[in-house]
Amino acid sequence: MTAPSTDTADANAKLAFPIIVSIDTMGGDMGPAAVVSGCSTSAKKNPKLGFILHGPQDELERLVAKRKNLAGRCMIRNAAGVVTMDDKPSHVVRNGKGTSMWSAIESVRARDADVAVSCGNTGALMALSMIRLRKLPGVNRPAIAVLWPSRNPQGFNVMLDVGADVRADADDLLRYALMGASYARNGMDLPRPRIGLLNVGTEEHKGRSELKEAYELIGAQADAAEFDFVGFVEGGDIQGDVVDVVVTDGFTGNVAIKTGEGTASLIGDLLREAFKFTPLSRLASLLAYTSMRRLKKRIDPRRVNGGVFLGLNGTVVKSHGGADATGISAAIKLAAQLSEQGFNDKLAARVARATALAEESKR
Amino acid sequence: MTAPSTDTADANAKLAFPIIVSIDTMGGDMGPAAVVSGCSTSAKKNPKLGFILHGPQDELERLVAKRKNLAGRCMIRNAAGVVTMDDKPSHVVRNGKGTSMWSAIESVRARDADVAVSCGNTGALMALSMIRLRKLPGVNRPAIAVLWPSRNPQGFNVMLDVGADVRADADDLLRYALMGASYARNGMDLPRPRIGLLNVGTEEHKGRSELKEAYELIGAQADAAEFDFVGFVEGGDIQGDVVDVVVTDGFTGNVAIKTGEGTASLIGDLLREAFKFTPLSRLASLLAYTSMRRLKKRIDPRRVNGGVFLGLNGTVVKSHGGADATGISAAIKLAAQLSEQGFNDKLAARVARATALAEESKR
Repeated sequence: MTAPSTDTADANAKLAFPIIVSIDTMGGDMGPAAVVSGCSTSAKKNPKLGFILHGPQDELERLVAKRKNLAGRCMIRNAAGVVTMDDKPSHVVRNGKGTSMWSAIESVRARDADVAVSCGNTGALMALSMIRLRKLPGVNRPAIAVLWPSRNPQGFNVMLDVGADVRADADDLLRYALMGASYARNGMDLPRPRIGLLNVGTEEHKGRSELKEAYELIGAQADAAEFDFVGFVEGGDIQGDVVDVVVTDGFTGNVAIKTGEGTASLIGDLLREAFKFTPLSRLASLLAYTSMRRLKKRIDPRRVNGGVFLGLNGTVVKSHGGADATGISAAIKLAAQLSEQGFNDKLAARVARATALAEESKR
Repeated sequence: MTAPSTDTADANAKLAFPIIVSIDTMGGDMGPAAVVSGCSTSAKKNPKLGFILHGPQDELERLVAKRKNLAGRCMIRNAAGVVTMDDKPSHVVRNGKGTSMWSAIESVRARDADVAVSCGNTGALMALSMIRLRKLPGVNRPAIAVLWPSRNPQGFNVMLDVGADVRADADDLLRYALMGASYARNGMDLPRPRIGLLNVGTEEHKGRSELKEAYELIGAQADAAEFDFVGFVEGGDIQGDVVDVVVTDGFTGNVAIKTGEGTASLIGDLLREAFKFTPLSRLASLLAYTSMRRLKKRIDPRRVNGGVFLGLNGTVVKSHGGADATGISAAIKLAAQLSEQGFNDKLAARVARATALAEESKR
């Protein structure tokens, strides 16, 4: 982390756009130029968007000045401090004031922006978000939800938690189901999403004890919360068409997404090698170029770039650390979509209703 | 499970081959014909192999008679009972006598065969193996180890546990590391395998408490047990080249392999679709045919078909339930290789030495 220093002179100024996205321009591998370029791409596509950019004022002013379509649509909040990928979350919580990440979350807390986007250190971003935005009533453990390429008609599943916390008890898993259902409803336009609980077998007697308990809890809330509970699902169902939302603890979910990404990357490399192997296959690769591009686009993680932090008083989108302008723009698009639909307020209401229902059934 | 009835008239007969593989011919999706066909393929490739086939005598005699190269190399043990994929392990342990699975394990227990192969119900096979073969001294939880396509020079990593038990404490994880090292040494000819412990980050402070404890235990045994401990690894390293053995609990490992298989299968389907999309891409797919076959072979799960049960008094290879003759033959090849090298005795000695060392260090 570098030494913090914040200029809040323009803190009271407001941008007149329907959707304001607060953006941490530092902490990603590609630097603020890629972030500003991503904002420019998003601004072209969506006229409703305005941006609050957090980072080094001079550099951001220079970068924004180069993009004509960003004129009048950005506000810059100077924050010289940077949270690095190696900073421990606990350290950032204590000393992070004045960093671009802290400042970006602060804009959501102050309601200057509807949603924050950062490609920085995930652990630090979650820790800061929890401390500054606070958890929603009824939520003990917030979760990170991602979209995952699948055989579903919509092309993606929601999976959560993928790494906010390494533990989750049955009550947490129920909250994840409710939050995931809200996300699928608002982020993917599915009126009645199908929810599955990740396990090592689909039989009811299998798996860890907290999963059996969560199975009962989630099943009992399905009707009231308007989702279909399909029961236990396995790792092979994450890319399938039996569920829209996969619920799991953050340890398992994190291993699963990284395993899936690693597998896709290995196959991609082997595919490239295969195409280079003979003159005939090199010719084939030329002919198949557009088909391959289409496939690559279909499973390109940059297109669905953005883990969403759920269960907080405010929405935070975590973009991939290595995201380029295309990736940043995808994260902004997701943030804007959730913000426009008043997603977080709906989610909060849903969790509150479920909590009340659970309390009632205990009486 | 169907009604059992066993004929042990030929129980004292012996086959005069250096390696005897005991084979459960029932319980797989493709039936005994595929299993016998797989034996025939293996017999052609390896003249050292003899087989004890367990299942319905009449049908097996008919199937074996059709394969000239199996003449004199098979012994048939009649077992009319079949363990189905839906049978609960506890039920099979109580009532499984007379099934082909029980009978196949019995041949290893009686030392008539060196190793057993089955494509039946994994849970039942593990439960029966534990009850009949018993755990090795020093092993509390046996594990299932699989080979996984990776960027390693040998083309594969070992991962364990992938589903023998949903729990594992720090001591279990240490045993998995030792057993995985033995497997990599004997099954992949790696004199000093690199061991990694699966976690959600590579930093030492991350993850669950039992993982931090296991980290210390495994690191302390690395020199004595002749492996390199690379520390924590992530889901994306399973297909990488930083480790030869990935150690994890059976819940996480099971989700990881199924996620990896599901991802590979989705990409395969999308690839086929992409090639069908335009006349040009259809032409490309013809030109790329041999390259694609090469790629498919490289990541074909049938080539490395076989999870190995480690930590028992005897080796059991679990073949995929949907395995065809090629898959069965791969499982038999693996079984033969491990058997030939006296793998299980070496593994037992290694675990015993490590247990003594750990006891000593506690004094």
